[in-house]
Parts: sequence; structure tokens; C-alpha cells
Amino acid sequence: MTDSKSSSASRLQLKVEDLEDLARGAAFLGTGGGGDPYIGRLMAKHAIEQYGMPEIIEPDELDDDATILTAAMLGAPTVLVEKAASGDDLDLVIKRTSEILGKQPDAIAPIEIGGLNSMMPIIAAARSGLPLVNCDGMGRAFPEIQMVTFNVYGVPATPLVVVDEHLETVVIETQDAKRAEDLVRSVAIQMGLSVMISCYPLTGKQIKDYSVKGTLRIALGLGRAIAEGRKHGNPTESLFKFLRASEYYNHCKVLFDGKIIDLRREVAKGFSVGHCVLQDIDGSDDRLELIFQNENLIARLNGKTVAIVPDLICFVDRETCEPITVETLKYGQRVKVIATSAAPIMRRPECLAVFGPQAFGLEEKFIPLEDIE
Amino acid sequence: MTDSKSSSASRLQLKVEDLEDLARGAAFLGTGGGGDPYIGRLMAKHAIEQYGMPEIIEPDELDDDATILTAAMLGAPTVLVEKAASGDDLDLVIKRTSEILGKQPDAIAPIEIGGLNSMMPIIAAARSGLPLVNCDGMGRAFPEIQMVTFNVYGVPATPLVVVDEHLETVVIETQDAKRAEDLVRSVAIQMGLSVMISCYPLTGKQIKDYSVKGTLRIALGLGRAIAEGRKHGNPTESLFKFLRASEYYNHCKVLFDGKIIDLRREVAKGFSVGHCVLQDIDGSDDRLELIFQNENLIARLNGKTVAIVPDLICFVDRETCEPITVETLKYGQRVKVIATSAAPIMRRPECLAVFGPQAFGLEEKFIPLEDIE
Repeated sequence: MTDSKSSSASRLQLKVEDLEDLARGAAFLGTGGGGDPYIGRLMAKHAIEQYGMPEIIEPDELDDDATILTAAMLGAPTVLVEKAASGDDLDLVIKRTSEILGKQPDAIAPIEIGGLNSMMPIIAAARSGLPLVNCDGMGRAFPEIQMVTFNVYGVPATPLVVVDEHLETVVIETQDAKRAEDLVRSVAIQMGLSVMISCYPLTGKQIKDYSVKGTLRIALGLGRAIAEGRKHGNPTESLFKFLRASEYYNHCKVLFDGKIIDLRREVAKGFSVGHCVLQDIDGSDDRLELIFQNENLIARLNGKTVAIVPDLICFVDRETCEPITVETLKYGQRVKVIATSAAPIMRRPECLAVFGPQAFGLEEKFIPLEDIE
Repeated sequence: MTDSKSSSASRLQLKVEDLEDLARGAAFLGTGGGGDPYIGRLMAKHAIEQYGMPEIIEPDELDDDATILTAAMLGAPTVLVEKAASGDDLDLVIKRTSEILGKQPDAIAPIEIGGLNSMMPIIAAARSGLPLVNCDGMGRAFPEIQMVTFNVYGVPATPLVVVDEHLETVVIETQDAKRAEDLVRSVAIQMGLSVMISCYPLTGKQIKDYSVKGTLRIALGLGRAIAEGRKHGNPTESLFKFLRASEYYNHCKVLFDGKIIDLRREVAKGFSVGHCVLQDIDGSDDRLELIFQNENLIARLNGKTVAIVPDLICFVDRETCEPITVETLKYGQRVKVIATSAAPIMRRPECLAVFGPQAFGLEEKFIPLEDIE
């Protein structure tokens, strides 16, 4: 980093007490996936008590040729809630990636924002003494390795290092991010569907050009808005006030207020896939259907699409506004379904080709949330 | 290598014309697996015409601290017959393994002997200009990575480098050879069940202490004995004369002479698995049943075990004595089933624990072929 740019005035300063709000906000941005915020937060708290909170830096502070490594958990959320990381696995993904690159990393960055995968980079940064960059590769969570801006703009996904709880290591090298996904998924299934990974080693320039910036700060603000709103009995209103003022998520609406009357969820091919139907809380005949693959993909109100990937679709508890991940959805649960716009970079045609509706086998074309009547 | 030991007098000198006999003999030792000898031979012929025949050295010529790398194809034989290797894949497994070890290899060695996996190391040696060691890790073929003397005696299976036809690379690192097997199998399934690997990087001392020595020479002699016998109309007798005079396979017998009347074969969990029933060629009620997992595991005559793994059980054409791999077995085929003793090291208790009958889920205990009445 260049000293001239590293003015700490604008830096995000995290405290241990902030982790709960950060994980909550990240879980909202995780759109049903991205891992369980409770487990993630406990792990991060433990790491920070032991190693101290990492310094959080802005993308613009990075030198163009700096080396930035990502750290994330990969697997099926239904398994991730039952398995924690030791920390040694995170150390090892960073160490092995550094060895393969022949470079020491200058910083750690999140690859996605989710309850768990906002926390893993914090832990990796804390344990390694490296700064953490306030950004990620999508401003939300996605189920597959190739679904990230970095891939769209030509950053190789590999070397992709996978480490399991026994510290067994697999290193994948391919020019094709979708093949990296296929391979890492097979390996993750064999390793028990909960592994630590590092992929898309980045330069400072790539982070500056292609990342979705400021998402750690936004996640914290979002989680804090919900918490503050609860004190006044209006967490959802408080959340919306924050979203409307945010840089990316300013188009936002409650799609539905209802009760889960149908829920199918299974672990298939290494993902939590399924669908969910909600009945209107007021007893009307309206039905909202959601389809998910780790993350929520599409919401249809009485058969008509009302929000679609890569825009964000999130379940929250209808009373507390606590974000709900798909693995904790339950029959009879009373929830609100909230949609927001995705970061602008995520809606570009070249990005939609990689993680728009068609990438998930959906027939509907992407329509921005604000353009849906 | 030390010059004093490299007297070429006792060395095996291979010519291109020998490849057919070598591949045939290796296919016999492959006990139904080890890959198709025809494909293997064509690939080796092509490589040798381009790069020259590699020097074949004896294990005792190696310095104790020499570095020896293995090269093999891994997958389901039913797929291997349809996919050849480019050679670039073999180069890459050797190159990546060398990089990971931080050492240049001094020689290449076969990990198993089979129609294909006797040829892959020849190609790797020819292309790299390295000598090939006259030995392997079992004196036969086996379906799983952990089933090799080197593992029994503590040589780590990894780094295990996997390369597919697109030169995508996966590197596996684990302390547990069975886990290496589980992981490489998942990766191989994802890569299409036909990949090139290098595993068990060895020192000269380990080769000297744990390999089954001389198996390339034996395979050549064995294939040649069949070919010579054909000229006099008695290939099977000629084969048996050779086997009886051989160091490891001296206990040998024709278990059955018959016709295939039942054959079930499927690719499951990354292997060719199945069973086969033969009817006596003379029309008696005798039935021989064989069970295989890539390789033949057990032969039962009217329900009584007459040969069992790790002893060798091989199908040969009843007229030409050509060895037959399980993927080319056909209903109605007329074959002889021949069994031989395994190399003595393979029958030690610690080895039987890793690749004896119980390792394949069989209930029968191992009985040496010569002790079965």
C-alpha cells in the first residue's frame, strides 16, 4: 500500500461487538445462502479474541500489483451449519496458495458476502495479520465458483486450493472457471460438503477494476439498521431506510408477507436446492413461489415473476426482520420476502451471461427489479 | 546412478517390435484390468518412434537417494479403451510432480503392470529422456491407489497429480492413501474416468526395498512365450512353461476351460464392476463364477473358491491364449481362466490387510493358490 492513500479517516473500523450486525447484514446480502451467520460470527469472535481485529482497507488503497487472496467456505449450507472451521484450514489455504503463486499476499478479500463468507475472510486476515479489503466479487452470495465478476472480466479462478478438516489438500488448476466449479464440487462432496477454499488470486488493479466495493461497510450498516429498528419496533422500516440510501441496493421492496405452506429442500449435486411456497398472511389467495440453489433465484407471485437473479431476494422474519437462510426455512414459518437491486456491475450483459437467470436454467430473462410492475 | 553398477550386460533391452509381446504379457499380469494392451501399445509405439526407446535400468542400479516418479492412467477400463493420451498430459504429470517436490526425477517407474499401465511409464520415460526402472509396485494390476506395496511400507501416496485431456490439473495431498483414492476417484469421475496420474514419488532405496522387481522383463517373456507357442500350436503350454520357471508366478494352473454364459458389468463409483459365469466347455454341470472390480478378484468353482486376490486370475482366449481384459468380455466367449501365485511380498500379512480379499469386501480369507485343493 502507498502511505499517501492509506488515510485511516475513511476506513471501516470494526469491533468485536460489530460482528453480530455485520453477520446479520451479510446474511441479508447472502440472499438465502452464503452460510449461517451465527456459526460464522462465533468463529470470527473466537479468532479476533485470539489474534485481534484485522485492519480493514479500501480497494483504492491497494497498489496495482499487490497480491490479494480470497478465503471462503464452500459446500451445502445444510452441512455448513453443522461443521465449523478450525482456523488451521484457513491458514493452510492461504499458505498453499502463496506457495503456488510464489508470492506473499498483501491482503485478504471476501469473494462473496454472506453470513459465513463475510466472516471467513475476517478470520483469515486476523490469523495471518493481513489487512482485509472492504469489497467482494458480487455484493451478494452465489452458489458456483464461476459466478463472480472476476471471472467475467478474465481473472483466472485457479489455482484453487481446497482444504478439509483433516487438512487434506486439493489444488485445482484450469483455465475454465466452470470446470473449476465442477472439479471443486466433486472434491467438496468427497470431503463432506464443507471445505475451505481460496480461489481467484487477485492483483490490486483487478480488485479496483472489478470488485463490488464497500460491501463490508454496507453489510454492517444494514445489520445495524435492523438492530436499531428493533429498539423502536420497526426493524423492516429501518432496514428499508438504509437500503434506499445505499449505493447498490436502493431499489427495494417487500415482495410478500406470508407463511410457508410448502417447502422442498434437498442436497443434490453438492447444493441445497429446492422451492418454497408462501401463503398471504392476510388470508388472500395470493401465493409466492421461490426457487433456490443455495441462494434464492426467482420469486413468482401467482405465477408472475416479481424478482429474479442477480437481483437479491431475501427471507426475513416478519417480526424481527432477522434474515433467514434457506437451510433454516421451516414449514409454517411467517416471513417477509424482500427484493433489492444488485450492484450495477452485476447487471451488465456480460455478467448476466455468467450468473443471470439462464445460468441457473431459468427461462425468464433478467428484468431489473425497478422495471417490474 | 553410480556408473559401477550400471553394467548394461544384465539390462533389459527393449525394441519397438517387443512392445506387442510386452503389452500382451503385461495384460496377462493385469488380471483383467490394467488397461487395454492394444491402445497402450499403439501409444507407446508412437512415442518411441518420435523420442526413441528409453533405457531400462534395474532397481539395484539406483542410488538410494534418487528420485523416481510413477506415471499411470487411472479410470474405468471401459472408458480407457475409448480414450487415448496425448503425451502432453504425461509430460505435465511429471513436470508438476517435480515442481511440487522441488526435485528433478532420475527415473520413471511403473506403479502397476497392465496392458496400459506398463506402457504409460515407457511413454513418460521416452518423452522425458529418463530411464525406466524394471519393476512395479505390485507385480500385477489393482483398482485402487492404496493397493500397492509402497503404501503398505509407509511411502506417502501424495503429492498425487491428476491431469486430464484438457491439461486441467488437480493436485491431491493427504497422509492417508485411502483418502487419496477417494479424492482421485471423485476427480477422475468428474474428468471423464480417464486421466493421467503420478503418485507415490519414490527414492531409490524405497524402490529397492519395496518394489516387485523385474516385472517388465517377466511381462515381455510371458508375452513372447504365448507368441512363440502359437507358432507350434500350443500357446497355453508355452505360457505355463514360462510361468513355472518365473520367480513369482511359478504356482499356476488352468482353473477352467469354458464359455461365458452370464456377464454383468457396469461402471459404478468409478470402476468397472461385475461378475461373470462360465459353463464347462465339455458340457458338464461345472460352473466357474468370477467377480471383478477392474481386476478379477475371486474365482469360485461350483461355489468353492479356487483362486483369490492378490493371487492372479486371468482370462485368456482358449485358442490363442491372448489375455482378455474384463471390459472386452462377451457373452458366449470361449475362454480359459488361469490363476498364478502373486509375488511373495504381496502375500505378506501386512499387504493382505491392504489388498487381500477383505479389502474388496469378500468374506473368504486369502489362501495361496498352491494350498487350494
